[in-house]
Amino acid sequence: MKELVEVREAVELLSRTPALLDLWLVALPEPWLTADEGPGTYTPVDVVAHLLHNEETDWLPRLEHVLEHGEAVPFAPFERDGFRDRFKDWPLERLLPRFSSARRENLDKLVELRLSPVDLNRTGMHPALGRVTLRQLLAGWQVHDLTHLAQIARVMAKRHSETVGPWRDYLGVLHDRVRA
Amino acid sequence: MKELVEVREAVELLSRTPALLDLWLVALPEPWLTADEGPGTYTPVDVVAHLLHNEETDWLPRLEHVLEHGEAVPFAPFERDGFRDRFKDWPLERLLPRFSSARRENLDKLVELRLSPVDLNRTGMHPALGRVTLRQLLAGWQVHDLTHLAQIARVMAKRHSETVGPWRDYLGVLHDRVRA
Repeated sequence: MKELVEVREAVELLSRTPALLDLWLVALPEPWLTADEGPGTYTPVDVVAHLLHNEETDWLPRLEHVLEHGEAVPFAPFERDGFRDRFKDWPLERLLPRFSSARRENLDKLVELRLSPVDLNRTGMHPALGRVTLRQLLAGWQVHDLTHLAQIARVMAKRHSETVGPWRDYLGVLHDRVRA
Repeated sequence: MKELVEVREAVELLSRTPALLDLWLVALPEPWLTADEGPGTYTPVDVVAHLLHNEETDWLPRLEHVLEHGEAVPFAPFERDGFRDRFKDWPLERLLPRFSSARRENLDKLVELRLSPVDLNRTGMHPALGRVTLRQLLAGWQVHDLTHLAQIARVMAKRHSETVGPWRDYLGVLHDRVRA
């Protein structure tokens, strides 16, 4: 059976994220990696830990949960900041290989599931959002990667919010609010 | 003479962008590469062309201009959409190697200039923004890369604005306004 286009496009995007983060962040001077947007916000390293935490407990595990339980058993809630305990003091050099292998395993599973168009309409129960389809979950996984890649660019850019002087008006990312 | 920390951190960041774009975008399924946010907005491929256009005429050339002319001769205006004529119909496979070599040449020049702390306070005249320092220009160059990396993530994410369904509320990048 041929892979669904939705699955193929998702795999193409999602498979690139670990190498992209590796190339972008490893051995970058420390001030880039420890930049944040204030108390409680994420540094670029926090983003990697959060993505790894998601990989272990959120998107693909929930997809399998829907295939097994449908709406009958809601997902376990996901702790957005759960990575802070789980991966406390893990450096980038330890987080990234782990994220890379977790992501690869999850995408291998996704492909092996050979989802059909009907499967994408199957529904599960999100503890806060209510009924969700697998199509929504698959899109959410991808947009979640992208929102955090945008966040890394934004957090690093804001190191220079003041330094850019009058160029500030031209550089939209400096005006984006703090958010995940 | 030891390189200034501002220059070293800039080079570390700026030197990674071409390879990062290559890894992220080359051979990605077409719908990701042709996504935009409406008429006149940039696709991911447009962003690469715009970055290349900047590399040839904007940041480093202006830095050299300041060292030569100070405030006496304002910069030539930069056409934000000038890439549309200059690189019309260039595919990613042609844009990216060109951007990569232009960026490398510019960073080599930057390092060879061996800027001093006093040099970073030297001023030039921006045709719209008025007096700017080299410190501001160097920061602007870096934030410009980051604002466009965030833009690529945002534009691609918005392909799935509707598809994510109720997850939309959790995915901040979908709520960012259209801007460079």
